[in-house]
Amino acid sequence: MNLVPDSIQQVISEISRLPGYGEKTAQRLAVNLLKMPKGEAVDLVRHLALMLDKVHLCRECGIFTEKEICDVCSDESRDRSVICVVEESFDAFMIENTDKYNGLYHVLGGRLSPLEGIGPEKLNIKSLIDRIKKLNVKEIIFATNPTVEGEATANYIHNLIKNYPITISRLAYGLPFGGILENADDFTLAKALENKQILK
Amino acid sequence: MNLVPDSIQQVISEISRLPGYGEKTAQRLAVNLLKMPKGEAVDLVRHLALMLDKVHLCRECGIFTEKEICDVCSDESRDRSVICVVEESFDAFMIENTDKYNGLYHVLGGRLSPLEGIGPEKLNIKSLIDRIKKLNVKEIIFATNPTVEGEATANYIHNLIKNYPITISRLAYGLPFGGILENADDFTLAKALENKQILK
Repeated sequence: MNLVPDSIQQVISEISRLPGYGEKTAQRLAVNLLKMPKGEAVDLVRHLALMLDKVHLCRECGIFTEKEICDVCSDESRDRSVICVVEESFDAFMIENTDKYNGLYHVLGGRLSPLEGIGPEKLNIKSLIDRIKKLNVKEIIFATNPTVEGEATANYIHNLIKNYPITISRLAYGLPFGGILENADDFTLAKALENKQILK
Repeated sequence: MNLVPDSIQQVISEISRLPGYGEKTAQRLAVNLLKMPKGEAVDLVRHLALMLDKVHLCRECGIFTEKEICDVCSDESRDRSVICVVEESFDAFMIENTDKYNGLYHVLGGRLSPLEGIGPEKLNIKSLIDRIKKLNVKEIIFATNPTVEGEATANYIHNLIKNYPITISRLAYGLPFGGILENADDFTLAKALENKQILK
């Protein structure tokens, strides 16, 4: 007979629909929650509900925020002439952690992926162009992922905005700091050579 | 500045405490929930809460169930003289799916693992011995995982119960059906040879 309790089966089938989760990983998550001390598990679920309730996308840039306008877009001291275009909110959070960037962000909400059925209409591209028109933008920096899809997404948008009188740049390719040269792939090594920095 | 909304940070730090989850996998889960259609995400969290509320351990065998006594323990047609000992509830669910077993189960709730600080006192071993004493048990079948820790757990319990007048067995080692002989490890192959089945 089928012994799996209905309430567990329901959770497994819903979690296994998340990207990157299969039946087995969903099952492991459900079991881990059930094996946690009850109070901690209940707290975790309460905090999940709270997160879903509080977090939405910034009306201006599309980043995850608990406010209507995020802390970056509402900060008058930021340089509003530069917009850094990222795939996801957490990419912006990472860049912000470097303390080396003082402009605005724009979150696309993904990357072009024909295989997954993600076309330009599913990304926040129109709102980016609206911002370029509305704000006095001088530079767009693409910080999409250094992957084929990330590149294709940047190229697609580049083509749409190339006639505006603005500088368009993208994050540099090169050796990752702390990496081992021997482990770098050909493309990364070729880019590092091409973009070599003159020291003297 | 730190842009990660507090409610997301809270969820990430709680999920990353689950076994097998790190900061990055926890973040991915949070982001996936936030990117789901709102209604589906809210449903999922509601079902998680429902699962935590409804599911507990069967008072007799320790399996996940929504009842006080699970469907196996309360089924009078099951053979109550055989107990199959498993590490986790889902191991019993898998065995039950074969439709080849009609005895009872006993869920240990894990396996001995000195490295993770899991000693015999953390497993449901005492309740197994109580059941052997109380019920008219004729056979104990160990179905712990075919790993060093699973073996050690079965051996430990074997030693505790060897003086009872019962048969003690364990699941057979051998070639996994559908596997490729060339890919079998030495131990599995040696066991398959040792336990060869006489066909004629």
